[in-house]
Amino acid sequence: MRELVVIGVGAGDPEQVTMQAVAALNRVDVFFVLDKGEVKQELVDLREEILRRYATDKDYRVVVGRDPERDRTTTAYVEAVDDWRRRRADVCAELIAANLGEDQVGAFLVWGDPSLYDSTLAILDDILARGELAFEVEVIPGISSVSTLAARHRVGLNQVGRPIQITTGRRLAKAWPEDVDDVVVMLDAQTAFTSYADEEVDIYWGAYLGTPDELLISGPLRDVAPEIEKVRAEARDRKGWIMDTYLLRRTPRPKM
Amino acid sequence: MRELVVIGVGAGDPEQVTMQAVAALNRVDVFFVLDKGEVKQELVDLREEILRRYATDKDYRVVVGRDPERDRTTTAYVEAVDDWRRRRADVCAELIAANLGEDQVGAFLVWGDPSLYDSTLAILDDILARGELAFEVEVIPGISSVSTLAARHRVGLNQVGRPIQITTGRRLAKAWPEDVDDVVVMLDAQTAFTSYADEEVDIYWGAYLGTPDELLISGPLRDVAPEIEKVRAEARDRKGWIMDTYLLRRTPRPKM
Ligand SMILES: C[S@@+](CC[C@H](N)C(=O)[O-])C[C@H]1O[C@@H](n2cnc3c(N)ncnc32)[C@H](O)[C@@H]1O
Ligand SMILES: C[S@@+](CC[C@H](N)C(=O)[O-])C[C@H]1O[C@@H](n2cnc3c(N)ncnc32)[C@H](O)[C@@H]1O
Repeated sequence: MRELVVIGVGAGDPEQVTMQAVAALNRVDVFFVLDKGEVKQELVDLREEILRRYATDKDYRVVVGRDPERDRTTTAYVEAVDDWRRRRADVCAELIAANLGEDQVGAFLVWGDPSLYDSTLAILDDILARGELAFEVEVIPGISSVSTLAARHRVGLNQVGRPIQITTGRRLAKAWPEDVDDVVVMLDAQTAFTSYADEEVDIYWGAYLGTPDELLISGPLRDVAPEIEKVRAEARDRKGWIMDTYLLRRTPRPKM
Repeated sequence: MRELVVIGVGAGDPEQVTMQAVAALNRVDVFFVLDKGEVKQELVDLREEILRRYATDKDYRVVVGRDPERDRTTTAYVEAVDDWRRRRADVCAELIAANLGEDQVGAFLVWGDPSLYDSTLAILDDILARGELAFEVEVIPGISSVSTLAARHRVGLNQVGRPIQITTGRRLAKAWPEDVDDVVVMLDAQTAFTSYADEEVDIYWGAYLGTPDELLISGPLRDVAPEIEKVRAEARDRKGWIMDTYLLRRTPRPKM
């Protein structure tokens, strides 16, 4: 039976791979990569660096497919992502069928942890549901950008006995989540935190976490929001892309 | 300057340590341990196994302090935990002052990820705030039980573009969080999921994740809740303790 391993490789520092991930990397015959056709050459280099350092025990091939375009014009976000996922599943199914032998091990490397805002598992489920290809799936957890953010700022994500919400910039821009004081925001292309700059909120912000370009800013949102906006815009211009995430902590905590 | 490293070592499988954690383990002169005076000998063994396997480059000492009792009789949960933390800070401050030389590296190993429902960072902040001891703090993120749960069940934590809430059994027992369909529950001594067994909810449950005793059950909550309660109670009786966590996923997703 074919096997596919989905390997979380951490947020950007090759040293974030786990022993378990290294063991998995060394069982792999074929690494599958969807090429985003974008400028993030550093991420390609980083992936190659991880293979070069840690996948040392056996020969492997890297097979690259063309990542289909996502429709970014529509406002129907969920539908656009669902459609994109189906087309990615088409591409992946072809790649697997054409390149993975019956008793071989294939792998997808995922940035951070595969359970957080990543479509690889859904794509594999999609392919399996079609019934044309059969394979086992194994998942190796990875250090997420969220854990990395908290570690670099040396903070916990939760207050004692309190919940944490992980959400998107798109949703935060609409409303602060109910009954939650600690909100982690990912996928924020629009600096949604600026809507809360008048409130009693601390921010712990990080970009390019784990990489040599890492940026960290924290403090009362009121004081540091303009600085984050500026640093973020400059970094994005300089590098052509940005990946950032942040924790917003409402203080003082209202009585329960 | 003294240095303290807080090292996330994963949820229970020694192979979940990262390369970064291994590098940190090998810089440590003194490992500090708070002995819970409890029966979880397996966790003590596991910690020793991690040191035996990975802290191989230099000599180190393990210094064990007595973990103060937490007041579990009061209903004032946050206050009880705050008070407990202060008393743990007293114990840790003494341990550090008595055992860590001025230019040595001390470490606390934390199960899972240090940012999730763990008090080590707050304890160190407490000690620093008193101004009697000075040290640098570094945090090494770890694979959390939440990432492990998702990996073992091969699911994502979020639905497309949707938020995730991480909360406690105590809070889930009071109410399902607003506007969230995907809820991860930790610290649940009371099987709070049973309150939702009549609703359209899937559960992905895991206990002793990453260890040889790992237990996994998933399915429509309506169908599997009784089985989880039974398996959980039996396991806890057999081993004398349990650590479990679960994802509840409300389906079908209401329209946004
Ligand atoms: C598609 S999601 C993937 C998340 C990933 N699976 C994880 O566990 O971190 C991409 C989002 O993750 C966050 N992110 C990923 N890597 C990051 C990094 N190195 N620094 C800061 N944020 C990062 C950003 O919010 C980005 O918009
Ligand atoms: C004090 S919290 C610490 C969490 C830890 N820092 C982490 O990142 O997983 C303890 C709770 O974590 C969860 N947990 C920790 N380790 C676990 C494991 N091996 N299997 C299942 N749940 C675990 C349980 O919900 C437990 O009540």
